[in-house]
Amino acid sequence: MSMFITTVREQANDAQRAYWMPKIESWEVIGAYAQTELGHGSNVRGLELEAKWDPTQKNFILHSPTLTSSKWWNGTLGRTANHAIVVAQLLIPKSGAGQNTVYENHGPHPFIVQVRDMKTHQPLEGIVVGDIGPKYGYAPMDNAIPHSAMLSRYAQLDPDSGIYYKPKNPNVVYGSLTYVRANIVMHARLVLARAVTVAVRYLSIRRQFKDRDAAGDSVLETAVLDYPTVQIRVLPLLATAFALHYSGQAMGDLYQRTRKEIEGGDFAALADLHSTSSGLKSLCTDLAANGIETCRRAMGGHGFGGGSGLVQLNSDYLSKPTVEGDNWMITQQVARYLIKRAKEVSTNKTSSSTNSTEDNLRRYLKGDQRLAFDVLNDDTAILHAFQRRAAYLTFKVYEAREVRKESYNSLLIDFHKLSRAHSQMILVTNFHNALQSNHNMSHFLKETLKDLYRLFSLSTIENESREFYNAGAVSNEQLDGLSQKILELMKRIRPHAVPLVDAWALPDYLLDSALGRYDGRVYEDLFNRAHRLNPLNRVTFNPDYRTDEIVMGSGDGGQILSKL
Amino acid sequence: MSMFITTVREQANDAQRAYWMPKIESWEVIGAYAQTELGHGSNVRGLELEAKWDPTQKNFILHSPTLTSSKWWNGTLGRTANHAIVVAQLLIPKSGAGQNTVYENHGPHPFIVQVRDMKTHQPLEGIVVGDIGPKYGYAPMDNAIPHSAMLSRYAQLDPDSGIYYKPKNPNVVYGSLTYVRANIVMHARLVLARAVTVAVRYLSIRRQFKDRDAAGDSVLETAVLDYPTVQIRVLPLLATAFALHYSGQAMGDLYQRTRKEIEGGDFAALADLHSTSSGLKSLCTDLAANGIETCRRAMGGHGFGGGSGLVQLNSDYLSKPTVEGDNWMITQQVARYLIKRAKEVSTNKTSSSTNSTEDNLRRYLKGDQRLAFDVLNDDTAILHAFQRRAAYLTFKVYEAREVRKESYNSLLIDFHKLSRAHSQMILVTNFHNALQSNHNMSHFLKETLKDLYRLFSLSTIENESREFYNAGAVSNEQLDGLSQKILELMKRIRPHAVPLVDAWALPDYLLDSALGRYDGRVYEDLFNRAHRLNPLNRVTFNPDYRTDEIVMGSGDGGQILSKL
Ligand SMILES: Cc1cc2nc3c(=O)[nH]c(=O)nc-3n(C[C@H](O)[C@H](O)[C@H](O)COP(=O)(O)OP(=O)(O)OC[C@H]3O[C@@H](n4cnc5c(N)ncnc54)[C@H](O)[C@@H]3O)c2cc1C
Ligand SMILES: Cc1cc2nc3c(=O)[nH]c(=O)nc-3n(C[C@H](O)[C@H](O)[C@H](O)COP(=O)(O)OP(=O)(O)OC[C@H]3O[C@@H](n4cnc5c(N)ncnc54)[C@H](O)[C@@H]3O)c2cc1C
Repeated sequence: MSMFITTVREQANDAQRAYWMPKIESWEVIGAYAQTELGHGSNVRGLELEAKWDPTQKNFILHSPTLTSSKWWNGTLGRTANHAIVVAQLLIPKSGAGQNTVYENHGPHPFIVQVRDMKTHQPLEGIVVGDIGPKYGYAPMDNAIPHSAMLSRYAQLDPDSGIYYKPKNPNVVYGSLTYVRANIVMHARLVLARAVTVAVRYLSIRRQFKDRDAAGDSVLETAVLDYPTVQIRVLPLLATAFALHYSGQAMGDLYQRTRKEIEGGDFAALADLHSTSSGLKSLCTDLAANGIETCRRAMGGHGFGGGSGLVQLNSDYLSKPTVEGDNWMITQQVARYLIKRAKEVSTNKTSSSTNSTEDNLRRYLKGDQRLAFDVLNDDTAILHAFQRRAAYLTFKVYEAREVRKESYNSLLIDFHKLSRAHSQMILVTNFHNALQSNHNMSHFLKETLKDLYRLFSLSTIENESREFYNAGAVSNEQLDGLSQKILELMKRIRPHAVPLVDAWALPDYLLDSALGRYDGRVYEDLFNRAHRLNPLNRVTFNPDYRTDEIVMGSGDGGQILSKL
Repeated sequence: MSMFITTVREQANDAQRAYWMPKIESWEVIGAYAQTELGHGSNVRGLELEAKWDPTQKNFILHSPTLTSSKWWNGTLGRTANHAIVVAQLLIPKSGAGQNTVYENHGPHPFIVQVRDMKTHQPLEGIVVGDIGPKYGYAPMDNAIPHSAMLSRYAQLDPDSGIYYKPKNPNVVYGSLTYVRANIVMHARLVLARAVTVAVRYLSIRRQFKDRDAAGDSVLETAVLDYPTVQIRVLPLLATAFALHYSGQAMGDLYQRTRKEIEGGDFAALADLHSTSSGLKSLCTDLAANGIETCRRAMGGHGFGGGSGLVQLNSDYLSKPTVEGDNWMITQQVARYLIKRAKEVSTNKTSSSTNSTEDNLRRYLKGDQRLAFDVLNDDTAILHAFQRRAAYLTFKVYEAREVRKESYNSLLIDFHKLSRAHSQMILVTNFHNALQSNHNMSHFLKETLKDLYRLFSLSTIENESREFYNAGAVSNEQLDGLSQKILELMKRIRPHAVPLVDAWALPDYLLDSALGRYDGRVYEDLFNRAHRLNPLNRVTFNPDYRTDEIVMGSGDGGQILSKL
């Protein structure tokens, strides 16, 4: 529904909005967003569904010419939706008539189409919809829809003259996608916070082994969250949840600001918004999806059980790295944007920057930064190291593509690395800014948040150490000091870990986890679920494969066989 | 069943074997392995279940004193098993009598215990068993079992004198565990091969986007496996499947050889077997589990669907990094073994080595190796680089723990890194050896396998570049050349990718994947599953939440409500 309603809101003209929005808001019209086809997802220009304009009837004929043009993966379409935004190639007659018409293709455009009867909910004639298995629907085959079905805020077709007016800024069609990506970025922090809450709480309750180096025999076993090998998996994710939080917030603000400018006719910031939302969507959903699984595995056997609450969270979230732009694909969009910015600052050396990305590139070109920033001891130096690495990679890619003219595809891995580096810089920047600007925070709390900022940043540097080294952002000696520093930070954060996740106040009802209970009664809850709640334990199963009875003593062996 | 039967085979004395094995092999006795408790898994010494020897009755009293001592996660125990190997603390009276008896704890021992009636399959008196939810059972509470229940191949208790004889080599109790770990290592390659087969086949069928740099308009879209960002995720895993194959084979051989020596009373190689199986279990199950998910995500939207076949494979396999020793935990066992070896070669500088691990450490100490091996151009240099890094990390850890006496827990992360480095060296060694010894292979095939060897090794070096650099195994300049070399290797392997996975000949029936079909009819299969096979599409659901009817036209709205 969310892409559907956003598309109507952003791409429909005023008359269309006035007609559709009340119906949508009252849930009379339930809509799907039907862009992806069996054969094409990432490549939207490659969609096969055709919308041919018929100038005599003044309507569009929607037609799926091939098997691979079947709409696929369109959420809600299979069973629930009665309407859909259907994305199709807009074909307008250029010459000839009837069978001999030659069409000009104006590329993919969104149309709003009714797919099911409003009373019987049966598919309309010529439309086949259904569930695709574990996920949703496939749709229109051959259908006539009126001129008003084409959403026309930016692109228009004059029904009388048949003339097509293309949007002033071709990027506006990405508006809804940008909105959904921004939302996904804001959502990632919530999901990761759930996983981290469960892990931090359980791992501070779970005790395993006495300390090998401790004297005496009577010491309690160690809470596993005290082991550095448990900390190194979970505490950086605690820090990541905060990093995602501040950038989620910043992303929301940026979207609202840019959207207002666009509505006012100013498209200047759209490209930056599109790049930021794409890069962060890719990075943040990777961090969250991988983070859930890391938390789950860190919890040992009980993490694998239904009582952990993370099994379902994991499966639910795993679509996010793919939907709304595959995480690897969309890093190309970020790289292309950055190449343009690098070209801009390289050619217009003196003009002033329009945004912070350009600022950073200009600073790099001026070369007015110290090298080997003191990342181990200085919070601002950390930020500078991330900025330098991002700028370094930007120019490296720019030179390969624009100066040495290397082939686009041979650079894809570099594009991906660049997008990650750039987006990590954004996370670090927003985290850093939040700590600078948040003045009504207690000194104590601020020191802990600073440690989280350092832990997030330094772990990231450690994982990508060669890029930082090659960029001249850190020295070999500094890299050698990282592990020790990270160990120290984790030791300092450990005592605050439980209070920090408790402060998020995620209700037990939402967590739905025996391991993540606020009151820590983990074992009682696990036992209760197994012993009292599990309905499987009410019957005794027959393990003897030679007889037909399934439940011992039911005497129904023969009957079951006869059903086959 | 596998741990159960292995434990009886390896830990039972001859009389016990003669009694139990026929019953087990005829599936009369169905057994579980019940070691883990609600409160303890990794820490086996910390188990709470007690087996108290009663010298007057000549039997053991098994007793679970606490909630956390409930047996938990014991496969098959919940519904199917009628017997179990139960691991309990062996308590033997030392002084006093009756209530005042003082016991001596001889640590965890395996007992074979009947848990359900052989006819009615009801739990025996004093035993509560059931399913724990998404996984299995919890078991004995308070039970008397005969003296013969204690498996006594190595440890024995004289029923008359009450004297306990401990095993000559304390490590023999790990025998079954080692067997199961070796099996897991051999299994990992099969699982990864399935995922890689599906991914390589589908990604060579899937086409998306025309080449940006290609001239003309009529070119076919590019098969996505031609994109380096797809290759970099999937082709190293193709190479990994081969690496796992050769080490799986070597692991099986090592196990059989060592087992024979142990049966003959020679325990010399047991410690090495235990370390190798632990390190490889940890590394290989990580590689396979993460590899499945990487393959799944690489396939975009269709990878997320049931038709991919990887969703189920993934969930099934995800227990492996945890069971039979948590993957992070058991790296400590490898590190402890290596510290002992380092101590041995440091103190006895001139004695000859008993195995290849010691050989390698001695070579390192002698310092007779060139530094900065030519890994980009020489297959044997690659092996030497892995050996050097493993030896470097071994001595680093040895010095920290044995010389500088740093605390055990502060070194856990280093232990983990060491175990990985050591196990990666084993993978590379076995891969390298296989290429040397396999003489009846065509030149053509051997060249392709060599490329896979290089791809696996160089990708590993790239991921752990700082360790190789710090160990003096590669130079900065060599590291700079890695990405380009990896790109070239992938380009060379790409045309052979489909034939290579086809050669594994995994049947379509096993893969159960529309995307991984041998004949490549991906879209037809997806459409068939959705359109013809999906039963959901036979009814029309009612999307209107204001009415009670679920299926449109069924008229049963009122009835459903009245059932609540
Ligand atoms: C749960 C779920 C819900 C969805 N809901 C909707 C919906 O409501 N409406 C809708 O229209 N769609 C929906 N989709 C579809 C989704 O938008 C697409 O699956 C997604 O955009 C990825 O496209 P694809 O599946 O074609 O992947 P592909 O493009 O086929 O990707 C396959 C692989 O090829 C790589 N690749 C492709 N092109 C290139 C290239 N040029 N360079 C390098 N690598 C490349 C990708 O990175 C990926 O690894 C949904 C999908 C899922 C899984
Ligand atoms: C599907 C499944 C099937 C199973 N089948 C059986 C079975 O048939 N029979 C049976 O007896 N058991 C079975 N088990 C239990 C399994 O063997 C244990 O879950 C496993 O050994 C891990 O132990 P744990 O759960 O106690 O983890 P924990 O030890 O609680 O681990 C929790 C976390 O603490 C860390 N940790 C613990 N101790 C230390 C330390 N000293 N230093 C550093 N880190 C530490 C671990 O790395 C992990 O991250 C099964 C488990 C599963 C999931």
